[in-house]
Amino acid sequence: MPQQLHTIAILGGTGAEGSGLALRWAHAGHRIVIGSRDPGKAQALADEFNGKLGIDRVSGAGLQQAAAAAEIVVLTVPFAAQLSTVRALHAELQGKILIDVTVPLVPPKVSQVQLPAADSCVVAVQSELGEGVRVVSAFQNVSAHKLKDLAYQVRCDVLVCGNDKAARQAVIALAADAGLRGIDAGLLANSTVAESLTSVLIWINRTYKIPDAGIAITGLE
Amino acid sequence: MPQQLHTIAILGGTGAEGSGLALRWAHAGHRIVIGSRDPGKAQALADEFNGKLGIDRVSGAGLQQAAAAAEIVVLTVPFAAQLSTVRALHAELQGKILIDVTVPLVPPKVSQVQLPAADSCVVAVQSELGEGVRVVSAFQNVSAHKLKDLAYQVRCDVLVCGNDKAARQAVIALAADAGLRGIDAGLLANSTVAESLTSVLIWINRTYKIPDAGIAITGLE
Repeated sequence: MPQQLHTIAILGGTGAEGSGLALRWAHAGHRIVIGSRDPGKAQALADEFNGKLGIDRVSGAGLQQAAAAAEIVVLTVPFAAQLSTVRALHAELQGKILIDVTVPLVPPKVSQVQLPAADSCVVAVQSELGEGVRVVSAFQNVSAHKLKDLAYQVRCDVLVCGNDKAARQAVIALAADAGLRGIDAGLLANSTVAESLTSVLIWINRTYKIPDAGIAITGLE
Repeated sequence: MPQQLHTIAILGGTGAEGSGLALRWAHAGHRIVIGSRDPGKAQALADEFNGKLGIDRVSGAGLQQAAAAAEIVVLTVPFAAQLSTVRALHAELQGKILIDVTVPLVPPKVSQVQLPAADSCVVAVQSELGEGVRVVSAFQNVSAHKLKDLAYQVRCDVLVCGNDKAARQAVIALAADAGLRGIDAGLLANSTVAESLTSVLIWINRTYKIPDAGIAITGLE
């Protein structure tokens, strides 16, 4: 059981990564609002998850309504939609924790690191939203592959970066609720590692012909 | 036993990381030239290693002489000395593999990622040296702690990045000779991950009060 139950909005929550996290957190007991540009699609997925888990705590909504309804908001939209999405939700996000999962992949060379000018697209989000929002970077390296299989032990640590220690700790607890080990990885600038690592993991998947390369931090045992 | 024996120059080889690699590669059978601005200090360390291992294949020399003598050159100097060192050895390095271990740490905030303008200091070295040198990025994340204890199983994978596949494979073989697992991590631009990860590992060491955090790639088993 989670230490604390939250209402969590997952923006882009109908996608592979967001929906996997949604299902795992709903299973752990949190109240989930799946946010999508298409509220009907979000509600259909919410209904599916409620049915699958035999619960009634997942709902679907548009992006703005989802962000407004939650204490913790998770951003799992494509890189191209990241900044415009948070800009449009500036008011709804104030005072909250925003967990940004965005990876700055630039197709077609997604297995090659191509960082944005600020070195971290999450740092750019923090600048956009101001200090009233506690932005935390996490979950970029967790393969969506099998995230929806609740019995599957995903072997990937979650690097958790953010400028507020309590917010980092809240996200480390949420990682545990999803069956993952969260690691305090430092201030938000350190998000560069998680954002660039995904391209390396894609390269490794292709080179070694495996479905879901991840990372583990060693030396903690 | 290594697949192939090389003569390896380790520039900055009297430092903690370089000397640890030197000892492990000498133990594996390679011929080692420890290169230092202070050739006397390099020779003293070479004598120590030869005595310790009961061999006679480690020597010490100045930087230029060491680079000229080897087929494979390893750069383990501080970030501040990186570019000036390779510039001075432009001629000696042509036609060779240069393994760059440099981490762009900017004191005093070494636990915070602060990438150079090109996002990767190793990419800058490749640009400086031109295509006649096969630059490979590796070993940035391996803690020097206990590297000189030959019986110690270092738990850290080596991300190996470079634009030439054969050179990446040669470095992966050298990682194995040092008792480490090398991973093909892609083109040289992907070196950004290894270069920024060290700051995160320093943060983790401090936060969790451990001596040698490292990383392992999961999903390969």
